[in-house]
Amino acid sequence: MSLLVQKFGGTSVADIDHIKNVARRVKRTWKQGHKVVVVVSARAGVTNKLISRAAAITKSPDPREMDVLMSTGEQETIALLAMTLQTMGVPAVSRTGPRFGIRTDCNHTRARIHELGGADTRKLLRQGKVVVVAGFQGLSEDGEITTFGRGGSDLSAIVVAGALKAERCQIFTDVDGVYTADPRIVPDAHKLNELSYDEMLELASSGSKVMQTRAVGFAQKHNVTFEVCSSFNNKPGTIVKKTAPSLESVSVSGVAIDKNQVRISVQNLPDRPGAAAGVFKAMAEIGVVVDLIVQNLGHGGKANLTFSVPSTDAYRAEKVLREKVSKSGAKVGRSTKIAKISVVGVGMRSHSGVASCFFDALAEAGINMLMISTSEIKISVAVNPEHGDEATRVAHAAFGLDKKRSKKKKASARRSRSKASK
Amino acid sequence: MSLLVQKFGGTSVADIDHIKNVARRVKRTWKQGHKVVVVVSARAGVTNKLISRAAAITKSPDPREMDVLMSTGEQETIALLAMTLQTMGVPAVSRTGPRFGIRTDCNHTRARIHELGGADTRKLLRQGKVVVVAGFQGLSEDGEITTFGRGGSDLSAIVVAGALKAERCQIFTDVDGVYTADPRIVPDAHKLNELSYDEMLELASSGSKVMQTRAVGFAQKHNVTFEVCSSFNNKPGTIVKKTAPSLESVSVSGVAIDKNQVRISVQNLPDRPGAAAGVFKAMAEIGVVVDLIVQNLGHGGKANLTFSVPSTDAYRAEKVLREKVSKSGAKVGRSTKIAKISVVGVGMRSHSGVASCFFDALAEAGINMLMISTSEIKISVAVNPEHGDEATRVAHAAFGLDKKRSKKKKASARRSRSKASK
Repeated sequence: MSLLVQKFGGTSVADIDHIKNVARRVKRTWKQGHKVVVVVSARAGVTNKLISRAAAITKSPDPREMDVLMSTGEQETIALLAMTLQTMGVPAVSRTGPRFGIRTDCNHTRARIHELGGADTRKLLRQGKVVVVAGFQGLSEDGEITTFGRGGSDLSAIVVAGALKAERCQIFTDVDGVYTADPRIVPDAHKLNELSYDEMLELASSGSKVMQTRAVGFAQKHNVTFEVCSSFNNKPGTIVKKTAPSLESVSVSGVAIDKNQVRISVQNLPDRPGAAAGVFKAMAEIGVVVDLIVQNLGHGGKANLTFSVPSTDAYRAEKVLREKVSKSGAKVGRSTKIAKISVVGVGMRSHSGVASCFFDALAEAGINMLMISTSEIKISVAVNPEHGDEATRVAHAAFGLDKKRSKKKKASARRSRSKASK
Repeated sequence: MSLLVQKFGGTSVADIDHIKNVARRVKRTWKQGHKVVVVVSARAGVTNKLISRAAAITKSPDPREMDVLMSTGEQETIALLAMTLQTMGVPAVSRTGPRFGIRTDCNHTRARIHELGGADTRKLLRQGKVVVVAGFQGLSEDGEITTFGRGGSDLSAIVVAGALKAERCQIFTDVDGVYTADPRIVPDAHKLNELSYDEMLELASSGSKVMQTRAVGFAQKHNVTFEVCSSFNNKPGTIVKKTAPSLESVSVSGVAIDKNQVRISVQNLPDRPGAAAGVFKAMAEIGVVVDLIVQNLGHGGKANLTFSVPSTDAYRAEKVLREKVSKSGAKVGRSTKIAKISVVGVGMRSHSGVASCFFDALAEAGINMLMISTSEIKISVAVNPEHGDEATRVAHAAFGLDKKRSKKKKASARRSRSKASK
């Protein structure tokens, strides 16, 4: 008998019928003898409705009041799900985030977690209860309701699992698990059985929308094993845990694409210490997350700096740069859309030639690389948006990630094909 | 500079436009230099929507989960109103019932209040803040969210005013104040300027729907002066306070009608101690509130007992009575609808002849009295439902409550008219 945390998102609890489905799944797990804690989001659409009501009042609502408002969404769901479980004979009890004991700082709408809580929940679990916890919310040091920002319910589930030392945290979504690539782009993509936190983090930050990086990072820090699985079937999903070797032992476990980035160039930046730092300080001050960065020398001892930011932040980033950087005589170019393709894999560390294989494959396909960035377990390249999908498919094939064939067969097949075509 | 508590119900905060209206009124009061605490209900329709969602799951939802669910309604309103006030330049901050510090027992969906709280709110008021409190809700000794049942937001407003020793609690409604009778039934009815708690209690329990008796009783116990006034204009309403003499010094201050009662008869009840008590114990056990009670002797040493209950409880009451009482050979009659007409007034205590004036007037109008009940400041009679409105008008005129003429003129005019018609 183990303790499982099961997390269901907004579409899984959209209405009473969906809530009943979730309850049946929870009951099944509970019937198998597991202790179960359920973490739920607001019903699909509810959060947007609340936001639009606030937007009808003001463009910049008080973050504290936004948290009071938003937290009602999850609170509704926990009550409805607990009632539903009870009618199915499962002794359920609901807990808001504050009541569960999740303590945060006072940064409303994007609070960070200080303490995990859960003492009271452990007691309920010993009594055989199923505990239904509201995701996305906690209580600040000042005794105020706080929320965690985007992807906050995933974070809650991981936090709850960590607090209770759960055997596993199951994140139920509309996909079967984490794939080697987006199956809509790469039809041959297949589901990964296991991943390491690092790989999951890189995939998440590289555009694989399964989970927010913040939840994955928290899981890694607190060593919480979690599973991404489908709420529509009972197949095993993808398990993410400490130093899990990719099951197939390939060097690359997945290819991710992020189409929501733009590239900004700053030319003729004085080539002296602190010039580039000034650019990124300006970005940090307005809360813009910079992703890929490339710097090289331009004309006459000046540097050219190119970096990518989320496309939603492009306008703000450009504006601030024009104000701050142009004083030094540097020129800020217009932002242009890019697609970022990343190959990710722990195996990469011990395999040489991953970069050259990746770049070769793109070159063979005639795709030009605009920017390159590498980490221990990831290589990202920016390409023109119209080449994004093709670049993903090419990389997926180059690393032998296709569904049915083994890596070696595939790789050799690719090589002979590519040789033949040369 | 005084402290005012202003309470707005669901229709007053139904949507963003209504919320803006409320905010403007609050701002006006605040601008006048008052300290203001606002108590609000859920937006009109929200509570019913939440109830219907629970009803789609089960007929008998867990009261604890119902409270978690229902309390979201008021929580939404406080956030929206606080934001609105802020955009109008009023430094507002919201407080849920639990956060305000209202402590209750553990009777979910109908919790009773133990402690008032408000320490934190006093601090905010000293800082010049307007505090927006969620009505209808508190926190139990077990740390659970509780709600107060019907009319709970009025109760919250009175509780908050009591906790903060406010100068006055203003209950904004869709009527101007408390009238001598329902103006839809008695066109000559006029608004009362002042009332005592006792009179307000009797009027409320006699079918005047302005406020729940529970809130009035709490106000009396804690000596909270409150004003019932219109949210649509700025006219003074009806002030309810300790031993306020009815301004016109008439013996009767109002006539109330309650059409939601039925009469149940139990015949041939053994005429021995405890027989009648058994009937009312059975009612209490199923939570049915008995109002008028009449007992008289029937045939052969048996007693006939007649009493009235709310029509919504008629079926349950009859069923339980048939099960429990019929063993003793008593016969439970079918429940029949009645209208209850009550004349209410503190002045009654010192005026003789109120009962006979009331009964005379009904007799002159040819209206038969089915049941009679009297208290210190109230006389109620049950009549056939079809005579209810007429009985109200007759009583209103008999006690000279008509709008424009003085009491004496009116009373003598009535007498001469009635003599002439004889």
